[in-house]
Amino acid sequence: MKLFGYWRSSATYRVRIALQLKGLDCDYEPVNLLNGDQNKAEHLARNPQGLVPALMTDDGDLITQSLAIMEYLDDAFPSHPILPRNIAARAHARAIAATIACEAQPFMNLRIQNYLKNEGSFDKDTMSAWLNTWPGGAMAAAEKMVTQYGGKFCVSDEPSIADCCLIPQWFAASRFNIDLSNFPHLAAINERCLAMPAFEKAHPLKQSDAVTS
Amino acid sequence: MKLFGYWRSSATYRVRIALQLKGLDCDYEPVNLLNGDQNKAEHLARNPQGLVPALMTDDGDLITQSLAIMEYLDDAFPSHPILPRNIAARAHARAIAATIACEAQPFMNLRIQNYLKNEGSFDKDTMSAWLNTWPGGAMAAAEKMVTQYGGKFCVSDEPSIADCCLIPQWFAASRFNIDLSNFPHLAAINERCLAMPAFEKAHPLKQSDAVTS
Repeated sequence: MKLFGYWRSSATYRVRIALQLKGLDCDYEPVNLLNGDQNKAEHLARNPQGLVPALMTDDGDLITQSLAIMEYLDDAFPSHPILPRNIAARAHARAIAATIACEAQPFMNLRIQNYLKNEGSFDKDTMSAWLNTWPGGAMAAAEKMVTQYGGKFCVSDEPSIADCCLIPQWFAASRFNIDLSNFPHLAAINERCLAMPAFEKAHPLKQSDAVTS
Repeated sequence: MKLFGYWRSSATYRVRIALQLKGLDCDYEPVNLLNGDQNKAEHLARNPQGLVPALMTDDGDLITQSLAIMEYLDDAFPSHPILPRNIAARAHARAIAATIACEAQPFMNLRIQNYLKNEGSFDKDTMSAWLNTWPGGAMAAAEKMVTQYGGKFCVSDEPSIADCCLIPQWFAASRFNIDLSNFPHLAAINERCLAMPAFEKAHPLKQSDAVTS
């Protein structure tokens, strides 16, 4: 398999965690979003939307959208599942993942922030209010969900697709100065995950295309 | 089971289609978004984010997020699957569903449009450009995906979770005057679906809480 992604892309980071949790080998080909590599014909053939990540499977199929890629990995390689066995717990894990992927991340994506600054005349304060209202509001919902369903991780005591989404969301939210002080359960899960080798190897700063200067 | 939703909510409409395609009986309790019922304690206990839909299962579990609810229905009631059997096709169906649920619908949600008008000073033209760039752009990607994977429906010749997402997206996009003229494959699938009894029964205007005047 080969993953096409970008070190700081939140959605690529989700898939890297899933691969690590499942113990799967996967090649990595960086798509440099700052250089506009995502809009070149080569990448548009992988993902017509010009987004990362995209996964090429061992059969040569190309799969887009991080939620679909993570579900694919669990379908194709059932060992070390990232979805709970219990059907209701599985639904709760997917609901937390969707809260982050549909209600938080879309509103903080860099292309959206750039659009709001350039076309919507958002200044620093307007942007901060936007980020704290929408991604922050979705994280407040996730905080309540993990309080209800979680244990050591977002759902019970095993990492799942929900944690694959939460950790990148926390990383990006910190980067964009979203107020995280009211999310103690999410903070504890984030700290526990970051201490695990699977999450450590998947961290943006550990990737071959990371730029730290 | 009982579905808590709203007739014109795109995410509720997705779940109604899934229930109909699977031939499942489900009670329906309207949550009037115009009256603010979604922010009352009674509904926040079902969904801390104050969103619809929420599904109460036969075991009394409450499940939120339409993608998670649809996956739950397929897990709990395997007959009449809304996910293709083939693992790659299943991934493509989920990728189209996620393209709509993560890249299109969030940016046209009424609460977001209201926020952009009130806090971001978006006027009619700025809003039209926003809607055509982001939800419209995601639909352009979906058009390419169904051209590649689709047959009579979004993926091959059977309706799936992708069609459950596409039809409500098309309905909402029409309502908000997004330019749909460049999406002939999506248009053909939309027409084919609307002619089917399952989709007809799930239509917003057929719900008990529909307001047509």
